[in-house]
Amino acid sequence: MNTTETKNEATNTTSIDTSDELVTSADPHHPANLIPELCKGFYHLGWVTGTGGGISIRDDEKVYIAPSGVQKEKIHPSHIFVLPYPQEEPPLASKAHERTFLRKPVIPLKESACTPLFWAAFDLRNAYACIHTHSQHAVMATLLWPGKEWRVSGLEMIKGVRWGGVRKTMTYLDELVVPIIENTPEEEDLRHTMVEAMKEYPDAAAVLVRRHGVYVWGPTWESAKTQAECLDYLFELSVKMKQAGVDTDWRPTQG
Amino acid sequence: MNTTETKNEATNTTSIDTSDELVTSADPHHPANLIPELCKGFYHLGWVTGTGGGISIRDDEKVYIAPSGVQKEKIHPSHIFVLPYPQEEPPLASKAHERTFLRKPVIPLKESACTPLFWAAFDLRNAYACIHTHSQHAVMATLLWPGKEWRVSGLEMIKGVRWGGVRKTMTYLDELVVPIIENTPEEEDLRHTMVEAMKEYPDAAAVLVRRHGVYVWGPTWESAKTQAECLDYLFELSVKMKQAGVDTDWRPTQG
Amino acid sequence: MNTTETKNEATNTTSIDTSDELVTSADPHHPANLIPELCKGFYHLGWVTGTGGGISIRDDEKVYIAPSGVQKEKIHPSHIFVLPYPQEEPPLASKAHERTFLRKPVIPLKESACTPLFWAAFDLRNAYACIHTHSQHAVMATLLWPGKEWRVSGLEMIKGVRWGGVRKTMTYLDELVVPIIENTPEEEDLRHTMVEAMKEYPDAAAVLVRRHGVYVWGPTWESAKTQAECLDYLFELSVKMKQAGVDTDWRPTQG
Amino acid sequence: MNTTETKNEATNTTSIDTSDELVTSADPHHPANLIPELCKGFYHLGWVTGTGGGISIRDDEKVYIAPSGVQKEKIHPSHIFVLPYPQEEPPLASKAHERTFLRKPVIPLKESACTPLFWAAFDLRNAYACIHTHSQHAVMATLLWPGKEWRVSGLEMIKGVRWGGVRKTMTYLDELVVPIIENTPEEEDLRHTMVEAMKEYPDAAAVLVRRHGVYVWGPTWESAKTQAECLDYLFELSVKMKQAGVDTDWRPTQG
Repeated sequence: MNTTETKNEATNTTSIDTSDELVTSADPHHPANLIPELCKGFYHLGWVTGTGGGISIRDDEKVYIAPSGVQKEKIHPSHIFVLPYPQEEPPLASKAHERTFLRKPVIPLKESACTPLFWAAFDLRNAYACIHTHSQHAVMATLLWPGKEWRVSGLEMIKGVRWGGVRKTMTYLDELVVPIIENTPEEEDLRHTMVEAMKEYPDAAAVLVRRHGVYVWGPTWESAKTQAECLDYLFELSVKMKQAGVDTDWRPTQG
Repeated sequence: MNTTETKNEATNTTSIDTSDELVTSADPHHPANLIPELCKGFYHLGWVTGTGGGISIRDDEKVYIAPSGVQKEKIHPSHIFVLPYPQEEPPLASKAHERTFLRKPVIPLKESACTPLFWAAFDLRNAYACIHTHSQHAVMATLLWPGKEWRVSGLEMIKGVRWGGVRKTMTYLDELVVPIIENTPEEEDLRHTMVEAMKEYPDAAAVLVRRHGVYVWGPTWESAKTQAECLDYLFELSVKMKQAGVDTDWRPTQG
Repeated sequence: MNTTETKNEATNTTSIDTSDELVTSADPHHPANLIPELCKGFYHLGWVTGTGGGISIRDDEKVYIAPSGVQKEKIHPSHIFVLPYPQEEPPLASKAHERTFLRKPVIPLKESACTPLFWAAFDLRNAYACIHTHSQHAVMATLLWPGKEWRVSGLEMIKGVRWGGVRKTMTYLDELVVPIIENTPEEEDLRHTMVEAMKEYPDAAAVLVRRHGVYVWGPTWESAKTQAECLDYLFELSVKMKQAGVDTDWRPTQG
Repeated sequence: MNTTETKNEATNTTSIDTSDELVTSADPHHPANLIPELCKGFYHLGWVTGTGGGISIRDDEKVYIAPSGVQKEKIHPSHIFVLPYPQEEPPLASKAHERTFLRKPVIPLKESACTPLFWAAFDLRNAYACIHTHSQHAVMATLLWPGKEWRVSGLEMIKGVRWGGVRKTMTYLDELVVPIIENTPEEEDLRHTMVEAMKEYPDAAAVLVRRHGVYVWGPTWESAKTQAECLDYLFELSVKMKQAGVDTDWRPTQG
């Protein structure tokens, strides 16, 4: 796992590969090409404006992650971080730079603050991609569902979501439940409650963060993306329904 | 009709053409080129996010259909299925693979689950294109019109819709009525009630599916698309009107 | 004025120029290039979906008009009609084909049904461009302002609108008034009431058509387009304000 | 500072450089290339429709400003004005053409009416970019917060905004306060109250103008843009929250 670097020290500068080899490919489906393209699409959906949100893709034994605090619609492949997988997340109190990297951008950037959250999806769900959005539809859902869960049923779009985000797709007869965790001042500090929520809700395909956004994952980047679209559609529709006085808990019965 | 294949058996692998010949053309108006381009446009209208929805085009004795469960904004012509027309839809209890194909993608894909619904529009209305959307405007219309019909009148955009979807265009004086059928767990199972609704409402240009979306068709792909646009506009506007307390049943009178 | 044609007869086929000469130019600002490009932009604003709406541009002694009933985001320069200006509009009861043309598309298309309305803006306001949209914001404005006028004041965007659509720009202190006429079954039949409204409201930059849309014009295509944008913004904002209980009649006073 | 011109007189025509040298560059990050590209993006966000709004970028000792009254999505680098920085703004009663320019477009254009407002951000905050939008979300925020401040707290997106627009980023625990000033008939006349508001609110990252829009700035164009996105997101979300009866003043507490 440490073939291209030695354990990076607090100085964070010794021996990390900053060449573009791991992020250069003519294949449009290479994660270093996909992340910029997908983030651009997310920007135009209003999911990652103002540098927030993004996507991480896992490919064999590598994880590709975008930088923190950059315009997500203008990422260049050379900005992408590559980390070996698996590796243990640093303890909460530690510094992010105690992570192990296979490759870092040569310009001074920090990996996304969502890294420990993406990692939770890889570790607990065996996901290969995880998306974080600041979609206003997700935020409004957390405000109009003040408890610890957002629930809907009886909507066709539920069929596009997978049990636990990675198993078989749900049916029209199933109730979709997404746990809602409370926001924390530091994104990293969401890790503990997100892990707890994922364990308490093993069937959940996502975790909503109140006043913040949502994390969605899948067995492939395509699946993570289409599930994120279905969930965002359902967050938006459920808010409209609630505001129009339409029951969001209506349950269909087997034909 | 069976020139390029023998009747496909339950194994579904014998003798089906998987070459790209039937879906390769330099003509941008070839159905195998139109379907990807139109679906991309529908994606940006919010009609087919999360792999849902799509369009099928009939051209002489062939029907072109997109695969099920793929990102509709990223369809490649080589993903398109070609079926001979006419052919009887398999009975409801049968498997989809009992259909006859002229061409299938070489990669393992299944034809759209909307196939029997598209077929209903071809058979009952002699349509040459049929569009299915998951537009939230259509879904909201089915929730705010809880009965078996959505109705509006007195709106200019009605003039863009055709009687029965395929005959002459309606006038500003006409009331537009679209039947609403109840959703079913399996898309295929909508066929029976959709056919019944189309027979009960011979003048209807579309069928709404409650909590799900809408099917719209036309004598050409251009007409199906522009009618889908007019109807979606009217679903959206009628929801806004109802929420603003504006009468959606106001009837104009002849000048 | 009749250099390239003889008076066209009821048969409408004799001697009309159908060559592409008058609609072929490498200049992106040639009206035959501008109309397709602008209509594409209008489509993505939701102004001309479902074939409705469009723009006509007048250039010296020629008027360029798009066809009726086509997808407005896919117009080709060769689809454009060219008419000599000035010419009298045919009397209301007459057929549209009694107009004089300098050039018609070779494929069987009819000039936009908005032609007599565009002409009103050219004749009464000496406009050089006229835009017609089916924007839902315009329609909602006509539904929430049930009288014969839509009025707003105290909004910065008013400064982007011209007195009468063609004179000097309005100020922040001015009240913006747009007359609303009732819709008619045939678009052509709007001409009489639109002309009356334009005469009754010489300062109005546009005419709203209830349950239908709006006509906006300007001394140039740039001005018609930016005024249409300002007005659409104001229709949308005024509807939001009214629905939020905010006074739309608030009047600023001189510094 | 006056190397390429002599002090321009009331005639405003003597010796001003109108060559394209200062606005021609192959570097996409040159301000004369950035301004057109960014304004195009702002247009599609609904921030600068109808010629309103824009961005000014300061680069070393030069300030780049777009013209007034042009379609902001169609600016050409040759339309950009270049002014030396620093220079004193002309007194309020004076004419705009008493400013000093390094370069003017050869076609008759006037620099943006926002110039004295952009200048305030450069002078008072040492900003290097300033954005002005007519976003309806900003306007609605000024209408639903009728006092002299718009305030929100407890929303993740606050973390994308900087103290004073140029210092360190805010935290999730901080309350975001933006002063609201009253609109004036002439944009230039906003300068006095905007300067006062910036002095009274040294921590504010923006100034809202009631019934008009917002001014946002940053230490770089990237920062001004992402802060403008965060603020616009928060204006929109806060309006939705207020209309849904959700408390916009909820304060999170430390861990």
